[in-house]
Amino acid sequence: MTAPDARPPSRDPQALVERVLRGDRLALARLITLVENRSPAVPEIMKALHPRSRDAYVVGVTGPPGAGKSTLVDRLTAHLRAAGDSVGIVAVDPSSPFTGGAVLGDRIRMQAHALDPGVFIRSMATRGSVGGLARATGEVIRLLAAAGHPWVLVETVGVGQTELDVMQLVDTTVVVLVPESGDAVQTMKAGLMEAADIFAVNKADRTGAPGLMAELRFAAHLHHASPTSRKDVDWEVPVLSLQAQHDVGVTELLAEIRRHRAALEASGVLASRRGERLAAEVETLLTDEFRARLHRQARDEPFRAILDAVAAGHLDPYTAAARLLPMISLEPS
Amino acid sequence: MTAPDARPPSRDPQALVERVLRGDRLALARLITLVENRSPAVPEIMKALHPRSRDAYVVGVTGPPGAGKSTLVDRLTAHLRAAGDSVGIVAVDPSSPFTGGAVLGDRIRMQAHALDPGVFIRSMATRGSVGGLARATGEVIRLLAAAGHPWVLVETVGVGQTELDVMQLVDTTVVVLVPESGDAVQTMKAGLMEAADIFAVNKADRTGAPGLMAELRFAAHLHHASPTSRKDVDWEVPVLSLQAQHDVGVTELLAEIRRHRAALEASGVLASRRGERLAAEVETLLTDEFRARLHRQARDEPFRAILDAVAAGHLDPYTAAARLLPMISLEPS
Repeated sequence: MTAPDARPPSRDPQALVERVLRGDRLALARLITLVENRSPAVPEIMKALHPRSRDAYVVGVTGPPGAGKSTLVDRLTAHLRAAGDSVGIVAVDPSSPFTGGAVLGDRIRMQAHALDPGVFIRSMATRGSVGGLARATGEVIRLLAAAGHPWVLVETVGVGQTELDVMQLVDTTVVVLVPESGDAVQTMKAGLMEAADIFAVNKADRTGAPGLMAELRFAAHLHHASPTSRKDVDWEVPVLSLQAQHDVGVTELLAEIRRHRAALEASGVLASRRGERLAAEVETLLTDEFRARLHRQARDEPFRAILDAVAAGHLDPYTAAARLLPMISLEPS
Repeated sequence: MTAPDARPPSRDPQALVERVLRGDRLALARLITLVENRSPAVPEIMKALHPRSRDAYVVGVTGPPGAGKSTLVDRLTAHLRAAGDSVGIVAVDPSSPFTGGAVLGDRIRMQAHALDPGVFIRSMATRGSVGGLARATGEVIRLLAAAGHPWVLVETVGVGQTELDVMQLVDTTVVVLVPESGDAVQTMKAGLMEAADIFAVNKADRTGAPGLMAELRFAAHLHHASPTSRKDVDWEVPVLSLQAQHDVGVTELLAEIRRHRAALEASGVLASRRGERLAAEVETLLTDEFRARLHRQARDEPFRAILDAVAAGHLDPYTAAARLLPMISLEPS
């Protein structure tokens, strides 16, 4: 695994794109790094891959730390591989903005599937803004899809706002809980209900599991019956029992994922949600570009003088913003 | 507390501003509601209050759920009140984006200081985007300052990205931990070190407290010695022992807060950080206004046709964004 390439491949983005479309793993890894580093080549890369970037079905796995998400992702991967499909995995760790905490988990997991060319794993930690993480995750998902993986699994830690943003990028969200996470469930119940397509109670042999499952089933049923719940697809969130470490319940979970996919496809909701997601991405791209131009212009007069007056307390931010807005150029650069 | 006003006050923003500057609590509550609801009057309100909005010293209190942050905020408030100062409190709950989870805590706490006209408490839950919460929190802090509170305490749950964003708005950050939060400390250590100005280990009579304190002191010392740590002010993060419920250690904590304030003031860092904060607010205002104009224009042709083509998969987001950007108008509306 650590042997150097005798002939390092080209870093030319177009050449990398062609190699990714032929299934070259090393080229895929390079493209992902370009995307993570916000290379100026990213727009060209994403344009070139666009026609192939919607071919994967994307499953999110989220839940509190210690719920066994990584183990579950490993088991799901093994089942999908046994069925002959290749799998792309994105592990997102937004909980540690300063440390890049995803690296260790990545290394540990790489061992299990290191020799399987049908599995591609990538970890992503927060770099700078949280919004940036969700955007980069979306791009990596599409790279994995374009590289020919029919399944992409996205694992995130926790169910805070960042995770909910990332979960907007997936087709089916599995929320993994353990009996110990009962308190978290109380706090987050409404958010969990909005986010989850399937509940999986892991370590289901422990005390408290039947109680948690009953509670979740009741909440899921109430939520489904509620007039305020999302009604574009008729789906009552199922609650499954799981012992991922012993491979118990994984077959059933995969069957529920396939059933949810079928419901989304039959109702036309899968296509419409993916369309909304792409339109939302346009907004993100526009806002990012606006901010980039703002930063460029902020270095020069008369922009700079206005910001300095604000920092010195001589001018309030609202007056400054009203003066600066028409000074920003949106012409093609 | 529930008695209706015999003569409900004017909702005219300018009249409210004048009453806030005279210390009228009801007018302050109304203005905060206008800010939270993004009333069109917000720019005028914030401009009018600007000269008075930097007079408060802002202390953030953060840490994991169950660490006793609310109790500590109550005790700090009691000590500050005993010294004759009035106190504004903002309780921010970003952990529950769908439920507005801050409401219950607000009601419980209101009891303790309900009859004290020297204390003003406001809870804020996530509304829409996380960025929006940090922005609104910043505005509420300045309203509380302009209303004449020399101290504003900001309480947040957890130490995720949202909390770190909110903590950017304060002058001194107190991170409260309990012996049980040892695991969280392991995960978040680097982030905690960046965020904290003072560590307070609460429930310090419990087993594990001395160990956690020794660990934090060691980490704080290493961080202070590290060449990569922030060096604009020479400050090694102190680690204090606390039993907030029994009022043990609160005097010492307040002394450390005052010592940190003195260090920031003496080095000129307080003024420069506040200046940077105001300049950053200009960027947020500009980006928000850009997004608002985008949403308005997205309803009309030819903007709409391009977004529809993206949603249908006929056009990739990058090409669409490049076409749309020069179409957005930044002229004064």
